[in-house]
Amino acid sequence: MSTKSGEFEGFNQRIADAMVASSEQGGGLPQYLGIHLREMTPGRLVATMDVRPELITPMGAVHGGVMAGFVDHCLGCVLYPLMKPGQWAATTEFKLNYLRAVRAGTLTAESTVLSMGRRSAVVRVDVRNDGTLACVAQGTLLVSDPPGAK
Amino acid sequence: MSTKSGEFEGFNQRIADAMVASSEQGGGLPQYLGIHLREMTPGRLVATMDVRPELITPMGAVHGGVMAGFVDHCLGCVLYPLMKPGQWAATTEFKLNYLRAVRAGTLTAESTVLSMGRRSAVVRVDVRNDGTLACVAQGTLLVSDPPGAK
Amino acid sequence: MSTKSGEFEGFNQRIADAMVASSEQGGGLPQYLGIHLREMTPGRLVATMDVRPELITPMGAVHGGVMAGFVDHCLGCVLYPLMKPGQWAATTEFKLNYLRAVRAGTLTAESTVLSMGRRSAVVRVDVRNDGTLACVAQGTLLVSDPPGAK
Amino acid sequence: MSTKSGEFEGFNQRIADAMVASSEQGGGLPQYLGIHLREMTPGRLVATMDVRPELITPMGAVHGGVMAGFVDHCLGCVLYPLMKPGQWAATTEFKLNYLRAVRAGTLTAESTVLSMGRRSAVVRVDVRNDGTLACVAQGTLLVSDPPGAK
Repeated sequence: MSTKSGEFEGFNQRIADAMVASSEQGGGLPQYLGIHLREMTPGRLVATMDVRPELITPMGAVHGGVMAGFVDHCLGCVLYPLMKPGQWAATTEFKLNYLRAVRAGTLTAESTVLSMGRRSAVVRVDVRNDGTLACVAQGTLLVSDPPGAK
Repeated sequence: MSTKSGEFEGFNQRIADAMVASSEQGGGLPQYLGIHLREMTPGRLVATMDVRPELITPMGAVHGGVMAGFVDHCLGCVLYPLMKPGQWAATTEFKLNYLRAVRAGTLTAESTVLSMGRRSAVVRVDVRNDGTLACVAQGTLLVSDPPGAK
Repeated sequence: MSTKSGEFEGFNQRIADAMVASSEQGGGLPQYLGIHLREMTPGRLVATMDVRPELITPMGAVHGGVMAGFVDHCLGCVLYPLMKPGQWAATTEFKLNYLRAVRAGTLTAESTVLSMGRRSAVVRVDVRNDGTLACVAQGTLLVSDPPGAK
Repeated sequence: MSTKSGEFEGFNQRIADAMVASSEQGGGLPQYLGIHLREMTPGRLVATMDVRPELITPMGAVHGGVMAGFVDHCLGCVLYPLMKPGQWAATTEFKLNYLRAVRAGTLTAESTVLSMGRRSAVVRVDVRNDGTLACVAQGTLLVSDPPGAK
């Protein structure tokens, strides 16, 4: 995806490495879903999660909310190595299209920053199920300073 | 919301009652989130979930994926009493806007069917946090026949 | 739609009246489409446009882009009486669902502000065709200061 | 974008060529906007439009509805060479993110089919302004048979 040259100059490899190393220990929804951050490069994140039986509906496919939760997490995580220490990113909106039912295997999300400003970013997420495109999403995130920052 | 008169004539009160009575026992993501279906009338569903600490991010707000999972579940559930026995509904796309950070209390979703055809439906979900609008969503669902149906 | 009490306190009736009085003379896409602003109250706008033959595709329905242009215009206009003089609103994203084909008659859009902050707003638009819901949309707008403002 | 091998086998080069050759003569919104179809290959369309002064708002940027109309048109056109003769495609929903204000020059849209079934398709559109990404969109289209078809 084309971005302006230098747009991701502030990429912090140390933060990226720390996020990948610890992604299974964060608790909450990401841990329930089993999301693993695999690879973080400037403006790009690859994450995976296994489709375990508990995440399947009685109709035999992954619950749409599972995919949505996975997507939302990947929308935000890709931004952390690009932000200043202490800043945080919150999704303000996103949209997803489910392309096919997912019944088993692994989901692999590729999260790509399409534009990054001082206060907001637009991110795209493509999710594949064992190599086949299963869901596409795009959303906006707000970048906030830590409380007390000037 | 205006709909064509008679659009929800096929509403099945028995299915609605059974869904409300059993909504806490379905397992999977809805049970992890703690979603309770409270009230189902033709073309409308009210559901709630409590914001427990595990669903909060380190930044102190409900994880966006939690809200997305809640919304996705409410998009689909409102359709079951309107479909023929054995049919099922799958979200094909949805979009949500987060209006404000949610830190505690209860989320209440109102899911409203905006249009209902033989094969697809458009549904809107408004989520309030202790009375204040916190998230709005709209999406499309595909209605499918059971395997083997003609 | 519930909003926080006082959220629209800054509503400027004079700006609203001027917009309604002059809406047919703005030129560009809105004039090509024939959009008329009919009524502006705090956080709410009603606008109409007639479905003239030129806006119909060879398949006999209003071009989706006509509806999208109408929606986009209504997303932004509702904010002007709520902003400070000189500020302007730009759509940063929106999503729409087409509920039924529109073949003739008048389109009436109701644009409602769901949340309004200092820098952004979320707005919903419902479009009816001769009384029947034909399109629903929701989007985000960025509020900007005039160049040179501090 | 990965798609299943053979997914676009039915691509009809003659229809594609005819659409490219005649795209400036269709009338209606596409002609008002000045949309030119430039290149159609299986599952992919490139189209352009010039940003003429009439399409700029008083704030100095392309009207959001102009971009939305351009996107909607490109969402649908990419499908025609993939459908059976007489079938038509109607957008049922789409969403777009505006990445930066467009003030002059040319808009170039790349429309890509992400999934194509017998009855519906999901399409992505990226719009660049003189080489820089300016808008991204994704949407769903319904494929319909001509009246009277069995």
